[in-house]
Amino acid sequence: MKNFTFQNKTKLIFGRGTIARLADEIPASARLMITFGGGSMRHNGVYDQVAAALKGRQWVEFWGIEPNPRVETLREAVALGKEHGVDFLLAVGGGSVADGTKLIASAIRNEADPWTIVRNPSLIGEMIPLATVMTLPATGSEMNAGAVISNDQTTEKFAFYSQNPVFSILDPETTFSLPDNQIAYGICDTFVHVMEQYMTTAGQSPLMDRWAEGIMLTLVETAPKIRADKRNYDAMADYMLSATMGLNGFVGMGVEQDWATHSIGHELTALHGISHGQTLAIVLPALLRVLRDQKMSKLLQYGERVWGIGAADEGSGCGGGSGTSAGDFERRAEAAIVKTEEFFRSLGLATRLAELGVGEETIAEIERRFRERGTVIGEGRNIDGAKAAEILRVCER
Amino acid sequence: MKNFTFQNKTKLIFGRGTIARLADEIPASARLMITFGGGSMRHNGVYDQVAAALKGRQWVEFWGIEPNPRVETLREAVALGKEHGVDFLLAVGGGSVADGTKLIASAIRNEADPWTIVRNPSLIGEMIPLATVMTLPATGSEMNAGAVISNDQTTEKFAFYSQNPVFSILDPETTFSLPDNQIAYGICDTFVHVMEQYMTTAGQSPLMDRWAEGIMLTLVETAPKIRADKRNYDAMADYMLSATMGLNGFVGMGVEQDWATHSIGHELTALHGISHGQTLAIVLPALLRVLRDQKMSKLLQYGERVWGIGAADEGSGCGGGSGTSAGDFERRAEAAIVKTEEFFRSLGLATRLAELGVGEETIAEIERRFRERGTVIGEGRNIDGAKAAEILRVCER
Repeated sequence: MKNFTFQNKTKLIFGRGTIARLADEIPASARLMITFGGGSMRHNGVYDQVAAALKGRQWVEFWGIEPNPRVETLREAVALGKEHGVDFLLAVGGGSVADGTKLIASAIRNEADPWTIVRNPSLIGEMIPLATVMTLPATGSEMNAGAVISNDQTTEKFAFYSQNPVFSILDPETTFSLPDNQIAYGICDTFVHVMEQYMTTAGQSPLMDRWAEGIMLTLVETAPKIRADKRNYDAMADYMLSATMGLNGFVGMGVEQDWATHSIGHELTALHGISHGQTLAIVLPALLRVLRDQKMSKLLQYGERVWGIGAADEGSGCGGGSGTSAGDFERRAEAAIVKTEEFFRSLGLATRLAELGVGEETIAEIERRFRERGTVIGEGRNIDGAKAAEILRVCER
Repeated sequence: MKNFTFQNKTKLIFGRGTIARLADEIPASARLMITFGGGSMRHNGVYDQVAAALKGRQWVEFWGIEPNPRVETLREAVALGKEHGVDFLLAVGGGSVADGTKLIASAIRNEADPWTIVRNPSLIGEMIPLATVMTLPATGSEMNAGAVISNDQTTEKFAFYSQNPVFSILDPETTFSLPDNQIAYGICDTFVHVMEQYMTTAGQSPLMDRWAEGIMLTLVETAPKIRADKRNYDAMADYMLSATMGLNGFVGMGVEQDWATHSIGHELTALHGISHGQTLAIVLPALLRVLRDQKMSKLLQYGERVWGIGAADEGSGCGGGSGTSAGDFERRAEAAIVKTEEFFRSLGLATRLAELGVGEETIAEIERRFRERGTVIGEGRNIDGAKAAEILRVCER
């Protein structure tokens, strides 16, 4: 196990009716701004619950933080917050609203332009506290310090790290009105967050492996229940908790991480506006195929524990396995990748670029960008532009 | 899933050489008292590492917090801390030192006697912060707010809850000199902490189930490696991380808990000074036998996922299982309990009261105490004095 430091101070308030606790958690003296996305919170009852919880308080509202939040929008929010002397932010919505609000919190007492802050977080001086009411399980933003911000002008998309929410309220009932595709993206996003922290060198921490596999097994078991009935409270609660636990540091203690799938996926979003979770469903299986030999031990463990793929001489579905021929390893690794692809397809997601009309031109542009920026990513620091292009050609059609 | 609130602010600093970070984590202005156990820290190099890390600082030392820390000892520490105007505590040692130091932190700015505080934590006013250097993985005290304190005069032992450590430093190398029996107690304690949060009604949270099973599987895999070589860094690191994660709230979100095994075990420690982990190895299997029908679904899941006990028609060791006869359920539940007992015995622990010379007189006294106090414990609030006595008779010989 590698040395590590872990701390996560976010207070997680989880369950039915918990939005009513907002007034206990936000200081009465706070000069509050509440941030929202495109308007769904008005229709699904969440806005009314928030307003009821904060009855008697005053606040400023900023509406319109879009999926893959754009710095252009967030500049407007920062200006509004400065104008009103805001000192506490509440993000209500999905991960994009939370992410965008992290940038607002970092920029509101800062003279630097928000995009400058994204590209150079060391410029962040004083931040104001933020909290969330999370209504779309996916990004884990409700319990981590990360955010991903897009820039329309430069068609770029980058992660930056600032601060955790002080508290996050998660009521699974707020997810009941989510469209099917958002649920599919969210489940895939959660699954791949865990894979980015898991699918690295084997044997680093047996406990972290079990916990990562535990989230993936839970998602695999829960997804069909959600497809059957997305108002199934327990299933949505499991998924929601899995999304939070998948990216709050709890499965990443003392182990290497990868994140190459995310980096390549971000380029697809930046260039074509493809939903983040959808990009991951396309890139991950291809990346695993290209890096199969490097990741072989962990792929075999993953196949066995998550998908029940044992060695040839024991039949499938029955753990263990002592088959040790290289051919059997390759067969089992490929079977695990196929199972992963089938899982993503069962969610209704595409797993090939051609399905979304993306082709060679985009692959070449991503290769060019990586080369220009000197990007080299992945656990093994061996994915440069050429390797990224190789991965994208594997999932081209 | 039940509604829940989760927050754990402790900063966990884990790995080789991390004691050196003490000076960065303790404010330079702190009026520091460092608390220790019986003296092993002088011999295993930990004292020297702490002193080196804090070179140039001043501190007060209190030595002599014993296993199952006694309020009589802690009163002395509180008096010393008051005398020196101490405002920051560092506990160096195992869970008992950490637990005792939590009481000191609660009593040092309080006029009430420490035992009064244990019995009535609402009396706690101002607390001073504490941190730990944890050298014995077991209690989880390094990342939770709990403590268990004994009273020699009344031969009582009670849990109380105050505050989490600000930070805890865990260097697995500090465990290399632990005696075998302390490692055995610690592994058993960790295993049973997880069982207390897991072995309840089935189906509450699939994710929490997987995480609890993940800790137990890790302990089962790691214990033989530690018995083979207790200077195996990775094995001790896995065990140490498992102990912390087993009782810091991470596997208890949204699920019922039980804790009857601990409550009964505490009486055996209070009456006979039997080590805490040892009492759990005796009580847990007996409790599972007496409550087998109530806990049947979870026992079957536990047997299958932790011990590979499948249904009769599929052979053992191969997950799944569709055997549904009551007789087959009983067979599989008993097999899971036997596996648990065998695991405890593999650690070198006793699993019967008679092995420790405890008999009917003690059982009758515990029944009397439960009746006198009106104690009714367990997930189902159905373990009173008579039921506790029934459990103890099952493990009598």
